[in-house]
Amino acid sequence: MSDVHRILVLHGPNLNLLGQREPEIYGRTTLADIDAGLAEAGKALGCEIECFQSNHEGELVERIQQAMGHADGVVINPAAFTHTSVAIRDALAATGLPIVEVHLSNVFAREPFRHHSYVSDLALAVVSGLGAAGYRAGLEGLVEHLNTR
Amino acid sequence: MSDVHRILVLHGPNLNLLGQREPEIYGRTTLADIDAGLAEAGKALGCEIECFQSNHEGELVERIQQAMGHADGVVINPAAFTHTSVAIRDALAATGLPIVEVHLSNVFAREPFRHHSYVSDLALAVVSGLGAAGYRAGLEGLVEHLNTR
Amino acid sequence: MSDVHRILVLHGPNLNLLGQREPEIYGRTTLADIDAGLAEAGKALGCEIECFQSNHEGELVERIQQAMGHADGVVINPAAFTHTSVAIRDALAATGLPIVEVHLSNVFAREPFRHHSYVSDLALAVVSGLGAAGYRAGLEGLVEHLNTR
Amino acid sequence: MSDVHRILVLHGPNLNLLGQREPEIYGRTTLADIDAGLAEAGKALGCEIECFQSNHEGELVERIQQAMGHADGVVINPAAFTHTSVAIRDALAATGLPIVEVHLSNVFAREPFRHHSYVSDLALAVVSGLGAAGYRAGLEGLVEHLNTR
Amino acid sequence: MSDVHRILVLHGPNLNLLGQREPEIYGRTTLADIDAGLAEAGKALGCEIECFQSNHEGELVERIQQAMGHADGVVINPAAFTHTSVAIRDALAATGLPIVEVHLSNVFAREPFRHHSYVSDLALAVVSGLGAAGYRAGLEGLVEHLNTR
Amino acid sequence: MSDVHRILVLHGPNLNLLGQREPEIYGRTTLADIDAGLAEAGKALGCEIECFQSNHEGELVERIQQAMGHADGVVINPAAFTHTSVAIRDALAATGLPIVEVHLSNVFAREPFRHHSYVSDLALAVVSGLGAAGYRAGLEGLVEHLNTR
Amino acid sequence: MSDVHRILVLHGPNLNLLGQREPEIYGRTTLADIDAGLAEAGKALGCEIECFQSNHEGELVERIQQAMGHADGVVINPAAFTHTSVAIRDALAATGLPIVEVHLSNVFAREPFRHHSYVSDLALAVVSGLGAAGYRAGLEGLVEHLNTR
Amino acid sequence: MSDVHRILVLHGPNLNLLGQREPEIYGRTTLADIDAGLAEAGKALGCEIECFQSNHEGELVERIQQAMGHADGVVINPAAFTHTSVAIRDALAATGLPIVEVHLSNVFAREPFRHHSYVSDLALAVVSGLGAAGYRAGLEGLVEHLNTR
Amino acid sequence: MSDVHRILVLHGPNLNLLGQREPEIYGRTTLADIDAGLAEAGKALGCEIECFQSNHEGELVERIQQAMGHADGVVINPAAFTHTSVAIRDALAATGLPIVEVHLSNVFAREPFRHHSYVSDLALAVVSGLGAAGYRAGLEGLVEHLNTR
Amino acid sequence: MSDVHRILVLHGPNLNLLGQREPEIYGRTTLADIDAGLAEAGKALGCEIECFQSNHEGELVERIQQAMGHADGVVINPAAFTHTSVAIRDALAATGLPIVEVHLSNVFAREPFRHHSYVSDLALAVVSGLGAAGYRAGLEGLVEHLNTR
Amino acid sequence: MSDVHRILVLHGPNLNLLGQREPEIYGRTTLADIDAGLAEAGKALGCEIECFQSNHEGELVERIQQAMGHADGVVINPAAFTHTSVAIRDALAATGLPIVEVHLSNVFAREPFRHHSYVSDLALAVVSGLGAAGYRAGLEGLVEHLNTR
Amino acid sequence: MSDVHRILVLHGPNLNLLGQREPEIYGRTTLADIDAGLAEAGKALGCEIECFQSNHEGELVERIQQAMGHADGVVINPAAFTHTSVAIRDALAATGLPIVEVHLSNVFAREPFRHHSYVSDLALAVVSGLGAAGYRAGLEGLVEHLNTR
Repeated sequence: MSDVHRILVLHGPNLNLLGQREPEIYGRTTLADIDAGLAEAGKALGCEIECFQSNHEGELVERIQQAMGHADGVVINPAAFTHTSVAIRDALAATGLPIVEVHLSNVFAREPFRHHSYVSDLALAVVSGLGAAGYRAGLEGLVEHLNTR
Repeated sequence: MSDVHRILVLHGPNLNLLGQREPEIYGRTTLADIDAGLAEAGKALGCEIECFQSNHEGELVERIQQAMGHADGVVINPAAFTHTSVAIRDALAATGLPIVEVHLSNVFAREPFRHHSYVSDLALAVVSGLGAAGYRAGLEGLVEHLNTR
Repeated sequence: MSDVHRILVLHGPNLNLLGQREPEIYGRTTLADIDAGLAEAGKALGCEIECFQSNHEGELVERIQQAMGHADGVVINPAAFTHTSVAIRDALAATGLPIVEVHLSNVFAREPFRHHSYVSDLALAVVSGLGAAGYRAGLEGLVEHLNTR
Repeated sequence: MSDVHRILVLHGPNLNLLGQREPEIYGRTTLADIDAGLAEAGKALGCEIECFQSNHEGELVERIQQAMGHADGVVINPAAFTHTSVAIRDALAATGLPIVEVHLSNVFAREPFRHHSYVSDLALAVVSGLGAAGYRAGLEGLVEHLNTR
Repeated sequence: MSDVHRILVLHGPNLNLLGQREPEIYGRTTLADIDAGLAEAGKALGCEIECFQSNHEGELVERIQQAMGHADGVVINPAAFTHTSVAIRDALAATGLPIVEVHLSNVFAREPFRHHSYVSDLALAVVSGLGAAGYRAGLEGLVEHLNTR
Repeated sequence: MSDVHRILVLHGPNLNLLGQREPEIYGRTTLADIDAGLAEAGKALGCEIECFQSNHEGELVERIQQAMGHADGVVINPAAFTHTSVAIRDALAATGLPIVEVHLSNVFAREPFRHHSYVSDLALAVVSGLGAAGYRAGLEGLVEHLNTR
Repeated sequence: MSDVHRILVLHGPNLNLLGQREPEIYGRTTLADIDAGLAEAGKALGCEIECFQSNHEGELVERIQQAMGHADGVVINPAAFTHTSVAIRDALAATGLPIVEVHLSNVFAREPFRHHSYVSDLALAVVSGLGAAGYRAGLEGLVEHLNTR
Repeated sequence: MSDVHRILVLHGPNLNLLGQREPEIYGRTTLADIDAGLAEAGKALGCEIECFQSNHEGELVERIQQAMGHADGVVINPAAFTHTSVAIRDALAATGLPIVEVHLSNVFAREPFRHHSYVSDLALAVVSGLGAAGYRAGLEGLVEHLNTR
Repeated sequence: MSDVHRILVLHGPNLNLLGQREPEIYGRTTLADIDAGLAEAGKALGCEIECFQSNHEGELVERIQQAMGHADGVVINPAAFTHTSVAIRDALAATGLPIVEVHLSNVFAREPFRHHSYVSDLALAVVSGLGAAGYRAGLEGLVEHLNTR
Repeated sequence: MSDVHRILVLHGPNLNLLGQREPEIYGRTTLADIDAGLAEAGKALGCEIECFQSNHEGELVERIQQAMGHADGVVINPAAFTHTSVAIRDALAATGLPIVEVHLSNVFAREPFRHHSYVSDLALAVVSGLGAAGYRAGLEGLVEHLNTR
Repeated sequence: MSDVHRILVLHGPNLNLLGQREPEIYGRTTLADIDAGLAEAGKALGCEIECFQSNHEGELVERIQQAMGHADGVVINPAAFTHTSVAIRDALAATGLPIVEVHLSNVFAREPFRHHSYVSDLALAVVSGLGAAGYRAGLEGLVEHLNTR
Repeated sequence: MSDVHRILVLHGPNLNLLGQREPEIYGRTTLADIDAGLAEAGKALGCEIECFQSNHEGELVERIQQAMGHADGVVINPAAFTHTSVAIRDALAATGLPIVEVHLSNVFAREPFRHHSYVSDLALAVVSGLGAAGYRAGLEGLVEHLNTR
């Protein structure tokens, strides 16, 4: 395993809207802010972070495929695709990489169809409801896992 | 709200066994280690931490009841009671306090009966599978929530 | 059957909180008030009332067991244990005593998991949503049943 | 709200048979007896009682509709319509009046199809299995509710 | 038991249309024809037949109630009410009379919601798909039952 | 097919209350207003409109039966009977006429038991949530269907 | 179609026990009695009856196969195989013959697993609970069907 | 709200095939015809119409996102994505705009998996089975909603 | 009851393979060994043992039928037929004999379809997972039952 | 493994009532009798037996925890906790010891909620319905398992 | 592994009818034709083919048992037993041989009860709907598997 | 129909990874190898093969749409989209072409959510688990179907 862990961070559909709409309700944190925070956290943890958002299932599938051999772990917030995409699940499983699943809001306090995830049983960990801090917690957990295995 | 947040950390049944059995598999981290780590993290976050473990549902219910007026938030790993205790749910709801639910292992990668929680829909956040670090992530999320509301 | 009916009144978990929290919402009636009201009603009905609350399933089981030979009927608000305790059901069934199940709020207007009771099909009657008056109604129904059989 | 509460008491299908058939089993209490008892209880509680029985869903719907503006609350034993009539539910909801649902026998100890009610989640309270006394308990609970709101 | 069995034959909603519409498909047998055939069969069997059709659940409930003490058995084709009327079930059960359930077409070869009947588990027998002859078979079975008990 | 289409418009239970209660919430449109609007729309479309409301399932069944040979299509808002009446379904199917099902509110945004309809799979079209305009849209769709077949 | 209808009557497992055990409860009618009655009824109806009982699914399958070209219809009481044998269903369907399904007792008043039949949706008619007379009713219905098609 | 309502009309996958295949069955109306009709209707209603079709979930998601601030309402026929896309649901919900869901055929008369929609409970109205006229009815309903709020 | 209890021991499909295949895994105990052990145990218990294995459901049904009047109880390992044979259930019920159900492996730790048995609710006892010793335990339990009733 | 097997025998809630109530029905065997019988059987098998009963889930959990390193196997009758306690399951799993589950009555012939056990899939064997002899059979099976592994 | 693979081909119930009935619909290919084709294909693939058809579950079980040590793989069309026979599943599993499951028609386009197979999860492959060619495809796949392992 | 059949072969998401990853496990066959083999097989069968892979649902939908008029049949391995894409189903149905569904592994031996396919009931045949040979078998079956219709 390389000395510097390379971590792919993936954001699913509609996450590009973060912070741009009704900031008095959802806050002013944008996806760019989250990515910047993760880059910084990555430095502290001694790892390289690459972030990618898409509203297209196929683009996410292909970005995951490209991670094979080029990343050491994946932090993913699949958003709506959490509940509907077997293709993303299959791509994640194909990489054989450790995965942490993140949700900004607590999906278990939302509609029942959000209680099932096609990713969770593949994941090392699931973090739900910690907001942007959930990505960082997931990143730290992933790096610790990479360091100790 | 007081300047210093008071956080109650609760551990459910069988968590007293942590680190005492087959350490080559489950690791050597004991519950005392986790509690010590949380105390230290609490200091850094400027909050008081109190920890409590029990194998008795009724004791946990009563410890939660006592938190009313004496704590500002709860971090709880209900362990097996996650899936069976409406009494703990009711006690948590009665406190009106913000709650973070933590699981050491990823419950979504285990038996189907562990996929349902009586606590999750009441919780601010759910952290599952980050090991001991999950408590710390939950604590940080809870404190951030208390600071920003 | 003795001339004076002896009635055991049981209160399940979290009912000790009644009237102590957010009285502007839930009212100021405490469990002690309810018990006092039942004692008074018992006098009018010519029966002895004994009340017991516990947050521990095992304590309720044992209190029910002790009723055998020492009580003529049971009024029980199992609270959260309504939906989860087969042990309380088995203890109630073992006594062979007539039982009335009481709930302060209308459980049928709450979460779906509160619509099933492990006690109801054993009970003489179920009273749900009449508040403290539900205990008294249940008590009267139980005494009428004892008088007419 | 008027000083004298006007309460509509409704009896669903087949309740006209009460006391007329196999009195050695079902008792000799007729529906007229129940209505007389409620009238008397109403006087003591300072309220006017009006009773109505029908085997026709449509007649019950229309009687409920007429209660708007002419009654302050409804005590209803929907009998078989409990489990099958959305029309009665809709009429009850349209009145906006507080409702108490009553069943003579304990429906939860009968066939599973009797465990679901289209009325219960709209009701202030549900009383099941107290026999004729259940109507009176329901009436008292309704009046108490009207007095305290 | 009287020497001459009195049998009530009941026809549910829409059966009044029999033979009047698309006779090239459904045949030209009208409900009057069926009733006449049953009257004739009744004579041969030494029993009195009374027939009644209604599209109103309440009318059928009341016609069943009136059978108590005035009939020795019931042959009923509840038609659509088979699947939706607990009130008819309750009225039939209240009579305590032996019942035979008849369907002109084979309900088990139709939509799934027609596979459940609220009457069948109360019935002595169920005859489905024998057309008008099914009433006669049901009548004969009922009379044989009355003769041999 | 006659040059002038004859359309039967049916309104189910509780729709007689429209506009009469809490007009500040539900609006002031009455059922008479809707019927008048449909009559006017009918003229523009060159068809005769006949409207009928009932809170009685049996009356609706019989009104539908009478449509055979006297109407060319049916617009029906079965209201609560949507979810409970196989008898209305059977009557509609017996007519062989094209049917449009209308709901004032969007039933799919209401309780789960309102998501199933015994009429929808027989219908040409279902319009839900367009308020009174839904009837007119349904009428136009029905007439277009009659004109083009 | 031949002038004389040839009817195959099939009896499933355990029906060979009829009348041989606890005759004070189940009656003294044996399977031989039923077969004799059907032979006689067959004569009156102008048809040839052949009866066959087996406790072996495979034997029933093969007897049904042999009916192709040698019988005009089948009366079958599949007994326990009603609920478990797709092979018998497939054989019956392969014959293309009209089928009447008969049960001595009313299966709908028995255990839930007896409410589903693999044969009913293929059948012309189902007769349940008429005892031995059910076979005769089924036979008559089958012959009437053969005569009128 | 602007004087002129801006309405986004969205067509889901495979709707580009309309009118191009087997016109003797599905009719010769193309999607361009529907869009032209809506443009004309839009003029009459005083609103601007913009239409967009895609077979790609991600493109529809992004087109919906762009509607924020640039449209006053959405008419959408999600076609196959009705039943599978949480991402489209989330995008629609994020806009906060009023939505009308349209289906050309009556989805309730088709396969069971078409009876569930991820959009319906968010929608103002659902129109199913009115063909191209359904879009126009939906548009009118949406404009009326915008005018009256 | 005879002084010497006659016990029928039945083995279902594939049990004839015991001990003959992969003995290093499944052990070398054959069905003949089990039968010999039961014969010996039978002597000690003062009862006659008769053993029978078949892969044919019909043969087992008939062997059970023959037990009527010739055996005092049945020990049965229905193997695969446990989950699929209503015919064996019916035969066992027809005998009216006390039954003990035995499984060599623990069926509750295997596939879900093995968790349901058509025999268990008829049985005096169920023994699962004790290997060959389970037959002996079942035999002893059956004899004790016969001795004490 | 030690020469002398140490076996922990656990009895769940309400089993302390054995033999003390309605002995004419349930027999006069007390739990003390069962424990004495097991002690004697233990001697014959060369193992040490320790017995423990509790009505408290938490006490059973802790008694199981203490078995780690101090016992070689567990015989447990979880009684009501069979169906509700994940905590006991988790404690049993944590010990890594072989387990035999015992029920005095045949749980499969009782209410459906008793057909599921949280212990069975962890168990070496399940014995249900053999009364006190079931414990002994379970003990023998456990010892044989310990001797042969 | 022997140089020449020995393959057992099994045909379930009613497959003996192939080609003998309504050949204008089902084609004229008989089971003998299929077996001849497989024999020829076997030669080309260098393997010995043995074919067996039965309508008796027990005979198929025993033929499968005999394959142990005498065959290298099994091609099976279980027909109706696909959905009902755990005994055939158990026999197939006991052989430890690679299995290919074949269906002449596409079972997934037929009744829902044909969508579940007790064999599929044990099989190397499932071929459904290719007609007689499906057997050959299955045979080739099986031989390739045997050659490459 | 053209003399030369034109066959479209479609591969769903993640199939582009075939043979490129962990070849010691999944083999070294790439998708290019499969396509080459099919081209060759196509020549032998006298048909033109065109292959297409995509990770994007929308691209597959559009490729299927283009097949109308340009292909005579489709062989498709929808991979993950098998279980989630109604859009692909609708596109396939719109073409009216015969379809064969292929899966490399046996989906019935994998996770339960892979047991349902949105394509299977539309397909001529389903081939699951034959690896690359499954495509060829599917192709041959499709060509045979085209030749014989």
